[in-house]
Amino acid sequence: MLNRPIGIIDSGVGGLTVAYEVMRQLPKENFIYLGDTLRCPYGSKNKDEIFEYTLEMVEFMLKKDIKLLIIACNTATAYTLEYLQENINIPIIGVIKPGARAAIKTTIKNNVGVIATEATINSNAYKKTLEKINPDIFVINKACPDFVPMIEAGFIKGSKTERIVESTLSSLNNEKIDTLILGCTHYPLIKEVIQKKMNKKIKIISSGEETAREASAILEYYGLINQSTHNPTYNFYTTGNSMFFSNLANNLFKQSLNSVESIVIENVKI
Amino acid sequence: MLNRPIGIIDSGVGGLTVAYEVMRQLPKENFIYLGDTLRCPYGSKNKDEIFEYTLEMVEFMLKKDIKLLIIACNTATAYTLEYLQENINIPIIGVIKPGARAAIKTTIKNNVGVIATEATINSNAYKKTLEKINPDIFVINKACPDFVPMIEAGFIKGSKTERIVESTLSSLNNEKIDTLILGCTHYPLIKEVIQKKMNKKIKIISSGEETAREASAILEYYGLINQSTHNPTYNFYTTGNSMFFSNLANNLFKQSLNSVESIVIENVKI
Repeated sequence: MLNRPIGIIDSGVGGLTVAYEVMRQLPKENFIYLGDTLRCPYGSKNKDEIFEYTLEMVEFMLKKDIKLLIIACNTATAYTLEYLQENINIPIIGVIKPGARAAIKTTIKNNVGVIATEATINSNAYKKTLEKINPDIFVINKACPDFVPMIEAGFIKGSKTERIVESTLSSLNNEKIDTLILGCTHYPLIKEVIQKKMNKKIKIISSGEETAREASAILEYYGLINQSTHNPTYNFYTTGNSMFFSNLANNLFKQSLNSVESIVIENVKI
Repeated sequence: MLNRPIGIIDSGVGGLTVAYEVMRQLPKENFIYLGDTLRCPYGSKNKDEIFEYTLEMVEFMLKKDIKLLIIACNTATAYTLEYLQENINIPIIGVIKPGARAAIKTTIKNNVGVIATEATINSNAYKKTLEKINPDIFVINKACPDFVPMIEAGFIKGSKTERIVESTLSSLNNEKIDTLILGCTHYPLIKEVIQKKMNKKIKIISSGEETAREASAILEYYGLINQSTHNPTYNFYTTGNSMFFSNLANNLFKQSLNSVESIVIENVKI
């Protein structure tokens, strides 16, 4: 039972930043990854679409007998986590609360910036989560609609990337924030560029790292840590073209994925 | 129900490093703190004594209708956490796993040092916890029997403190560790001296900060975050002299405690 896989779902390849942290921080765990590349990005979709697409991914995962589900997409987390936690009988972790908690631990001035997709920012999920825990935290939200398409197009460094990052984020340097949450799992891929363009003193929180750690806590708490000494297995699925997914993952992460399978999930709407 | 307090227990004043982090990271939560100052330090006691004393503290806490228990003492965590989690019907968090998880996230070379009391080191709890999650982590243990008596005697800086810290820890600088866990909740009080005496590149993990954060995760996960807008209340109890406890806390933390009550817990043995 303990060697059942963790399920990781995302709108595309961004959630791989979470998957790699799971590999690193939980090296005994098996996982299955599903990226809904066909319908990516979720950040510009409406609430009903995000809800429907995410539920379809969850159904796919539940058939794989996962022991824990990680919603490795901030937008999907913002719109579905509460519903899923109420209706599905396995532990489920999103990426928003772990990032929020890390920011609460890190901030000294209680001034936190959040950058994310339009849909995540519109959901106000980070602000609500931060304020629910600490009402004295002041939150500055900033939507970055260009970042996911830019990253999915392979631009993670160089002058074009720097120009887009700078023009999107420069106004944040005038705020009093001492902590910045990367509220989209794609953003760790451009973390160096973001750090370069932001005030040096601002500490950057990557939800991915924090989510892997919180997954570890929840697995431990439920007595679900894998005890097998076999090498872990990782299976990757995409709703898009498997070669495209592999190549993009290789380009972005400089690490090759062993097996990527292209799948059709029920009711896929493009 | 949600405004029920968190219970925090420790062998003495060291657990206040956890309590202050709970105040900071969970500012809406009420808590009750109990320090078993009369029988401190636990680090030099045997297994049966540690077990018995901790259970007496837990019984006191359960009568206070707490919603979550934090064992803010590494030694007590090492010897009782598993038993308590199996036998008591509220969520219980120790300080070892949160510190271990933070170290796993932080270490790059998979080489981690642990400093703690003799009893904690002898339990091998950190090594077991780290290796359970990541078998490739190499752990160097170092018992520091002089630190708790030194801190409880009020020495947290100055030449005497520096001399003791240096002579205890200097051998660790020859190891390949890149991360050092403060495996005793007293040790954050001498964190600056420790950092000064250790190789600059070694990152220091304070279980207290990490435990408060993991408490936040568990409360959130169980839907137990306090929603009241009243100012939180903090009650402090000691098995020793309340004035002594207050003064020591004031000296160590430069923050005064509102109410400290001296109590007798059942079967107290000196």
